[in-house]
Amino acid sequence: MDIRKKIGLRIKEYRTNLKLTQEALAFKAEIDKTYVNEVENGKRNVSVINLEKIICALDATIRDFFDSEVFEGGIN
Amino acid sequence: MDIRKKIGLRIKEYRTNLKLTQEALAFKAEIDKTYVNEVENGKRNVSVINLEKIICALDATIRDFFDSEVFEGGIN
Repeated sequence: MDIRKKIGLRIKEYRTNLKLTQEALAFKAEIDKTYVNEVENGKRNVSVINLEKIICALDATIRDFFDSEVFEGGIN
Repeated sequence: MDIRKKIGLRIKEYRTNLKLTQEALAFKAEIDKTYVNEVENGKRNVSVINLEKIICALDATIRDFFDSEVFEGGIN
């Protein structure tokens, strides 16, 4: 699976656990809501600075965010 | 510490463990060597697709790469 898709799914997982809307997440992360939507849908090649903002707004650490089987495999 | 710096240090750690030069890493990752140099020096806001290529060239998984105390804290 494309890394963009993997990250998008993981964001969605955290966001829905927190019962946040995409809009609320975008507001909390101080990022445009269209951008957050595209990242969550795996359509954006997000940069690490914006990804960190999103992860922070999800009350997670970068370490925890990537601590999933999803991020075990190689490219594709 | 800035996320760019954290990522750069982690890349350097893996790269030196593998006894790879920056040039060899860039070649293996199929990324420009100037770009790899800038990422390693924490000067580049690397995108997840290029970061995945670098991590893959370091024979690591994304999960392992971020499995470090360095990635525990919040922003800054």
